[in-house]
Amino acid sequence: MRTETDSLGPLNIPQTAYYGIHTQRALHNFPIAAQVTHPELIRAFLEIKQAAAQTNATSGNLDRSVAKHIVRATKQLLTQPITPEYFPISDIQGGAGTSTNMNVNEVIANVALEQTGRARGDYSYINPNDHVNMGQSTNDTYPSAGKIALLRLLAPLLSELQALIDALGSKADEFSATYKMGRTQLQDAVPMTLGNSFHAWLKPLRRDTVRISTARDGLYLLNMGGSAIGSGINVSYHYQVHIVPNLAGITGLPLQQAHDLFDATQNLDSFVALSGTLKTLAMSLSKIANDLRLLSSGPRSGLSEINLPAQQAGSSIMPGKINPVIPEVVNQVAFEMFGFDATITAAAEAGQLELNAFEPIVFRSLFAGIEHLTAAMHTLRVNAIDGITSNKARLAQDIDLSASFATAMAPIIGYQEAAKIAKESLRTGKSLRQIAEKKNFFTPDQLTRIFRVEDIVINARTPEHGLVLYAPKS
Amino acid sequence: MRTETDSLGPLNIPQTAYYGIHTQRALHNFPIAAQVTHPELIRAFLEIKQAAAQTNATSGNLDRSVAKHIVRATKQLLTQPITPEYFPISDIQGGAGTSTNMNVNEVIANVALEQTGRARGDYSYINPNDHVNMGQSTNDTYPSAGKIALLRLLAPLLSELQALIDALGSKADEFSATYKMGRTQLQDAVPMTLGNSFHAWLKPLRRDTVRISTARDGLYLLNMGGSAIGSGINVSYHYQVHIVPNLAGITGLPLQQAHDLFDATQNLDSFVALSGTLKTLAMSLSKIANDLRLLSSGPRSGLSEINLPAQQAGSSIMPGKINPVIPEVVNQVAFEMFGFDATITAAAEAGQLELNAFEPIVFRSLFAGIEHLTAAMHTLRVNAIDGITSNKARLAQDIDLSASFATAMAPIIGYQEAAKIAKESLRTGKSLRQIAEKKNFFTPDQLTRIFRVEDIVINARTPEHGLVLYAPKS
Amino acid sequence: MRTETDSLGPLNIPQTAYYGIHTQRALHNFPIAAQVTHPELIRAFLEIKQAAAQTNATSGNLDRSVAKHIVRATKQLLTQPITPEYFPISDIQGGAGTSTNMNVNEVIANVALEQTGRARGDYSYINPNDHVNMGQSTNDTYPSAGKIALLRLLAPLLSELQALIDALGSKADEFSATYKMGRTQLQDAVPMTLGNSFHAWLKPLRRDTVRISTARDGLYLLNMGGSAIGSGINVSYHYQVHIVPNLAGITGLPLQQAHDLFDATQNLDSFVALSGTLKTLAMSLSKIANDLRLLSSGPRSGLSEINLPAQQAGSSIMPGKINPVIPEVVNQVAFEMFGFDATITAAAEAGQLELNAFEPIVFRSLFAGIEHLTAAMHTLRVNAIDGITSNKARLAQDIDLSASFATAMAPIIGYQEAAKIAKESLRTGKSLRQIAEKKNFFTPDQLTRIFRVEDIVINARTPEHGLVLYAPKS
Amino acid sequence: MRTETDSLGPLNIPQTAYYGIHTQRALHNFPIAAQVTHPELIRAFLEIKQAAAQTNATSGNLDRSVAKHIVRATKQLLTQPITPEYFPISDIQGGAGTSTNMNVNEVIANVALEQTGRARGDYSYINPNDHVNMGQSTNDTYPSAGKIALLRLLAPLLSELQALIDALGSKADEFSATYKMGRTQLQDAVPMTLGNSFHAWLKPLRRDTVRISTARDGLYLLNMGGSAIGSGINVSYHYQVHIVPNLAGITGLPLQQAHDLFDATQNLDSFVALSGTLKTLAMSLSKIANDLRLLSSGPRSGLSEINLPAQQAGSSIMPGKINPVIPEVVNQVAFEMFGFDATITAAAEAGQLELNAFEPIVFRSLFAGIEHLTAAMHTLRVNAIDGITSNKARLAQDIDLSASFATAMAPIIGYQEAAKIAKESLRTGKSLRQIAEKKNFFTPDQLTRIFRVEDIVINARTPEHGLVLYAPKS
Repeated sequence: MRTETDSLGPLNIPQTAYYGIHTQRALHNFPIAAQVTHPELIRAFLEIKQAAAQTNATSGNLDRSVAKHIVRATKQLLTQPITPEYFPISDIQGGAGTSTNMNVNEVIANVALEQTGRARGDYSYINPNDHVNMGQSTNDTYPSAGKIALLRLLAPLLSELQALIDALGSKADEFSATYKMGRTQLQDAVPMTLGNSFHAWLKPLRRDTVRISTARDGLYLLNMGGSAIGSGINVSYHYQVHIVPNLAGITGLPLQQAHDLFDATQNLDSFVALSGTLKTLAMSLSKIANDLRLLSSGPRSGLSEINLPAQQAGSSIMPGKINPVIPEVVNQVAFEMFGFDATITAAAEAGQLELNAFEPIVFRSLFAGIEHLTAAMHTLRVNAIDGITSNKARLAQDIDLSASFATAMAPIIGYQEAAKIAKESLRTGKSLRQIAEKKNFFTPDQLTRIFRVEDIVINARTPEHGLVLYAPKS
Repeated sequence: MRTETDSLGPLNIPQTAYYGIHTQRALHNFPIAAQVTHPELIRAFLEIKQAAAQTNATSGNLDRSVAKHIVRATKQLLTQPITPEYFPISDIQGGAGTSTNMNVNEVIANVALEQTGRARGDYSYINPNDHVNMGQSTNDTYPSAGKIALLRLLAPLLSELQALIDALGSKADEFSATYKMGRTQLQDAVPMTLGNSFHAWLKPLRRDTVRISTARDGLYLLNMGGSAIGSGINVSYHYQVHIVPNLAGITGLPLQQAHDLFDATQNLDSFVALSGTLKTLAMSLSKIANDLRLLSSGPRSGLSEINLPAQQAGSSIMPGKINPVIPEVVNQVAFEMFGFDATITAAAEAGQLELNAFEPIVFRSLFAGIEHLTAAMHTLRVNAIDGITSNKARLAQDIDLSASFATAMAPIIGYQEAAKIAKESLRTGKSLRQIAEKKNFFTPDQLTRIFRVEDIVINARTPEHGLVLYAPKS
Repeated sequence: MRTETDSLGPLNIPQTAYYGIHTQRALHNFPIAAQVTHPELIRAFLEIKQAAAQTNATSGNLDRSVAKHIVRATKQLLTQPITPEYFPISDIQGGAGTSTNMNVNEVIANVALEQTGRARGDYSYINPNDHVNMGQSTNDTYPSAGKIALLRLLAPLLSELQALIDALGSKADEFSATYKMGRTQLQDAVPMTLGNSFHAWLKPLRRDTVRISTARDGLYLLNMGGSAIGSGINVSYHYQVHIVPNLAGITGLPLQQAHDLFDATQNLDSFVALSGTLKTLAMSLSKIANDLRLLSSGPRSGLSEINLPAQQAGSSIMPGKINPVIPEVVNQVAFEMFGFDATITAAAEAGQLELNAFEPIVFRSLFAGIEHLTAAMHTLRVNAIDGITSNKARLAQDIDLSASFATAMAPIIGYQEAAKIAKESLRTGKSLRQIAEKKNFFTPDQLTRIFRVEDIVINARTPEHGLVLYAPKS
Repeated sequence: MRTETDSLGPLNIPQTAYYGIHTQRALHNFPIAAQVTHPELIRAFLEIKQAAAQTNATSGNLDRSVAKHIVRATKQLLTQPITPEYFPISDIQGGAGTSTNMNVNEVIANVALEQTGRARGDYSYINPNDHVNMGQSTNDTYPSAGKIALLRLLAPLLSELQALIDALGSKADEFSATYKMGRTQLQDAVPMTLGNSFHAWLKPLRRDTVRISTARDGLYLLNMGGSAIGSGINVSYHYQVHIVPNLAGITGLPLQQAHDLFDATQNLDSFVALSGTLKTLAMSLSKIANDLRLLSSGPRSGLSEINLPAQQAGSSIMPGKINPVIPEVVNQVAFEMFGFDATITAAAEAGQLELNAFEPIVFRSLFAGIEHLTAAMHTLRVNAIDGITSNKARLAQDIDLSASFATAMAPIIGYQEAAKIAKESLRTGKSLRQIAEKKNFFTPDQLTRIFRVEDIVINARTPEHGLVLYAPKS
């Protein structure tokens, strides 16, 4: 054990711990969640500290050799895995992130001290507050680190989203001439193609891509340089001007400084907006998962239009049962995201005056939401979408037996008469064609056209079908 | 126009208005929602004012003739419809309900003044604050009126809930021997009866009844007598002791006085708890509606197990289409209640120190939630449940074709072998019975039993089926 | 009473009713909410019917004189108020909006019949389905009408939002040199200006403007021409090409036809996305309202930094009390919007296959959310923001007594020493200046600079303050 | 590597893995969350398997020596920590929990096989499905295990809740004569005691205790014996009767068998109801945390009524700053629970027909919610509540300066006159007493009583104060 002292008094810390007294107190105060702070948040913090040390050295406010050791320590820490041994604090914490900021400050100081041959806790040479944290506050570093972490996590999400769109697009092409019954309100409506289904699933995902990307743009704006509350107190002019460009260089991200640093410090609307777009994506995915489960229901007593690839035995007791396990996990991740959005909104709304103290739960929720959605889209694509097949015979039979052609009859004989034929079909079990042929309502040519599904489905129509093709560009 | 004056200054009011200056200011301040305060809330307020006047008269604090006129005014107002002409304020208002309380105080004062032949606004004889509001504060009357209104609205909800349970129970009996395929994860599982479905739907509603009734009990506790913040300032001992019993007498409700009046003034947990039980009911109803829509899907390309009674033509373009419009409206009322619960929780959490200023939105949400759920259950029962019929042939055919009997084979030949038979059935289209008869796995007696659905479904079993009956009491 | 007949049978309808049998059945089926369908939705429907009749006439599918009467009827109905007498159906309805579409079809048919001297219900000449609804389905008209209505309601919301931003901006200028204590986590932090507060409040609203406008753009895309499920069944080529441009002409809105009509029929992601931006706005407004209530708390035992204009007597029992009633109503509207967002998300997720049957509750929630937010912003600006004044003496005193200058000392004497001085100040009640002057830590020049608030607040700094000005553009 | 084969084909599994092919497939299918299934859920599953083996042995369906090995394996596994090495599957999974059930079945089989000297995967002697899972389905074991786990996790929650209530009660006693200003809507209202505040905080927690306990009672009802869908297929009469009592014996919990096993299999209303009570607790805790942060705001520019014990340095840049970090973490846990409730409701609503496939996310959310709330209440009590002190001088001064005594004047001089005095006080800065003494409105005796706070606060009144004591029992 070694002893460190802060304004509250002395405290014992494990001898070999790289963290210091602030981290130790946080461990005592926040034994909430088993999970520790997300590695991407720590990594972003390390980059911020590196940028700050470099900038402070250039400005002349930080001794160049101290800066050099701080930079070296951050580089070392960035090459090794982020582990609870160094960064042990729960990701649900009070204090608006100060514990995580100080944890990083302390670890950097002690790693740097070790590099110079000094003992842990010997902060007179390299001090967590005065040197590592110079020109900074938790008020500006914590939101900035969170934004950088989010930017890093959103990249794979957007990639998986694009891959899923592409996979759905391939299937839309594959099934572009596979006719099936369309349904409204789960009741038979009129024919369409299975390709139409896949295309209708991918379109919202394209819009989700745009929405998430647009919301992401708000994250490039950092409040670095604002220090406490956005005031810029204790921040030199040089640092003010150079910190964000330097950080952009280190991270490789097109970061910019916010115009109103007070605003950028206290308001979490950008996170709520991002969360709203993720929730919308979750909704879109859940709707797709619902439809996949419906269309693959069966195998005998369901719709049985499509087959999802079997991924595991479905039941511990029912032999041969195969379940739609992949869409089911997608649904759950979507429901989880609905909850995250509620949490994030409540936390953002609770911010008071110059700071929102509840960013830790916002970040935790966004990190988990993004990662789970990314993984869910991956397994959905690879383990479900890519392997979907259709049951053509069943699809064709459903169309033949349906009363949907009554809709095509209505312009000729009127809605009321067509309804009577539909009712007769349902009552007698005879197909519409059988009934229509008996009645003398239609010319042979009309009959042919009424029952030609290629005429019904807009994007299957060709000039030869008697209708000039009308297909808005996709 | 007449002029009234308060501490903010004079204001013009329509000459004939029964309301006064406070109401007039509120109209200016809160032009939010088109809806005005719920009539039940106004009625409860009138009863409170009546009880207060009587109690203050008995205690000697209020002139008996003034009290008499106040009481007479409340009685008159309680006999006529509650209209925006008298009570015009939006039900979304700031000020923690003060505007509604003062609206009631002013209307009573002016109706009473009219009875005595005095002019409107001549408050020297009967004053909205000093006489009508004597011993009270908005802090205690507003929550108390809200609770009384909720108690009144919950009664029909509980009646409709019971009627729905009874209707589902009748159908459970009607279909107690109608066998059908059970499904898990939308995939064919093992047989059951349609009666089992209806019974499984009604059971959560029974628990909802208990949950809502228990939550309702919290509403009988009023903070009348607490006046401002629960302190009881300006409240006489006599009033303190007698106001709630008197109010109980007037309303006919078993009202009681809260033990900690500070608590009862500031905390909205009882409303959140009630909302939670209503949300649970909404969830239960939505699940039933979902199942009804699934089971009645078709008529040709769906599950087609049951038929909902046709209630209206389903489509403006598709003749003969019938849609499950009643369950659909139930779903929507459920989704609305989910939102009300979110609103109520946010509003309750936002209360600060000695008062929650956001009760108006809590009451609005609860009133609408209760009324819509009540109406939804009514139409669900009368226009859907009561008229449901089953498609017996389809149900029987589904069982015959299913691979579900593989589960009954597993204890004899093992899970792995049974799975092979199930797969063969699906691949070849042959029924399990056909395959099983070919293989020499089973004795004739075993074969009989495997395919006897009465043996599979627990509450259909009888001793003659080879299994001693085991039926836990419902 | 007159009798109309549909495929379910005959039904009595009030003799003079302009609506017909479908509306009558809907009244029976959906007695849920007291509110009827929003007038803007009905108006948009009337415009759609007008455009359709014109387009169908041009294409040759609809008799020109029938079309003329339909157009004339819609024009007549658009000039008169939309009342429950004509459009009596609850805005919470099953059937995916079919009841509202048919209500409009029936009213137009009967108004048109009346113009031709025919009796109500004599649909052989002008038929609600075959003529008024020609080429359309509820599947395409209902979402399209909803989008047009939303576009109309969003215009005043965006105007009020801009007006609020401007009002906050004026106050930011007015208070740009009014120094005050900044707080983090409700604890004294470092000085700032009251102008900084107002500017930090308006910035999220600017972003909300962009977010809402971007989400609004998604509403210009209509699925008209898709008829049932987006298939375009029974739709002529001419109609397909011209219906949306014609509707754009009638409405004056830059409407466009969606590329994938199946997608545009079944997916509600655009509404969820819009709702997400409205919820974010609600969150921003609630945070502002919270801060206003905090800063104006008092008058004696609160922060008392600012004064909201008095709008009404605050209490029925406590004389002289003034409450922040305007921000309070803003909070409540925000909480309501949180709930609407939950409802909308649940309803959108529940859509199945080719249609979402739950659009009625989505529209109801969006309409109310938009209108209430618009009204809340109006009253917030006019009745609160515009009249805010500051308590300069209190603000100055708070800065003088604060320990915040310890932060400015830290770069000179280190964090630990500065913390000791801060603690001494709090313990002894002496100001930091008194203590600092006693200790010989600082030169007179340093002392001057430490306590000069103009040096602390970034956007108040000038070159003469010893720091070169650094102010990112707002 | 070893190879196992199921109906989907062969698969490689790490040679030493105790889990088998089903687990391996699940690892591939559900790479969603880093967290694995909660240890308490696994433990409950092991107890269920133990009870089932014993019951099946007694019934004669399971070979006694096989049963013995299964029981021994479960006992061994229950003594060792539950680690990802054995139970590696993500707690967010599709398949309704089948993967976790099969994971447990496989590990037990392989541990039992190891005990008998057999190789892993040699399932001919002890089979995961046929023996370990005998008489069971995931349909009944997964919900039952979840309920047992929840019961175990709720015990410490209720203990911490009671401890928190007690701690607040002690403080209520300690501060029972510490007078302070009460506030409504953050504006000065009338005096009360600090003890009143603490008592008002603990009362909802008492009700939360009752609500959570009542909801917990619903968890004692298990659907064991229902096997697939609640049908009881493949379940012997003996097992049916004895499985739940046996499980009650093993777990030491008063478990009972549900009456309607179909209901108990498919409906999640009990979890939604429990979640609703946890959300209400979260709301109550958040309100307390909000109030604590408000009352301790300062130290100079805030309300400064109470002091929270300092737990860590509040800022990395602002020396001497102490923040309310403990209440802040409580707020965040509450916001998280709001989100969990939304997730749970959505998942429960999505259940279809005979099973809800989304229990995994329900359990994950409940487990985390319960554990985080438990930890939050612990740190709130130990690190905040227990050490709270009051600033008596400030409290007394606030009362003296307040205009609140105008309320006590109103019954004597009327609301309007009292309001004028309050306004004069605020305008001039003179105390009410000064003003009142100048005016000749009151007798000396009245004046004494108006300013005696002991007369104002109901539960401080004694007969000597001129009012007969009236204190409803707490």
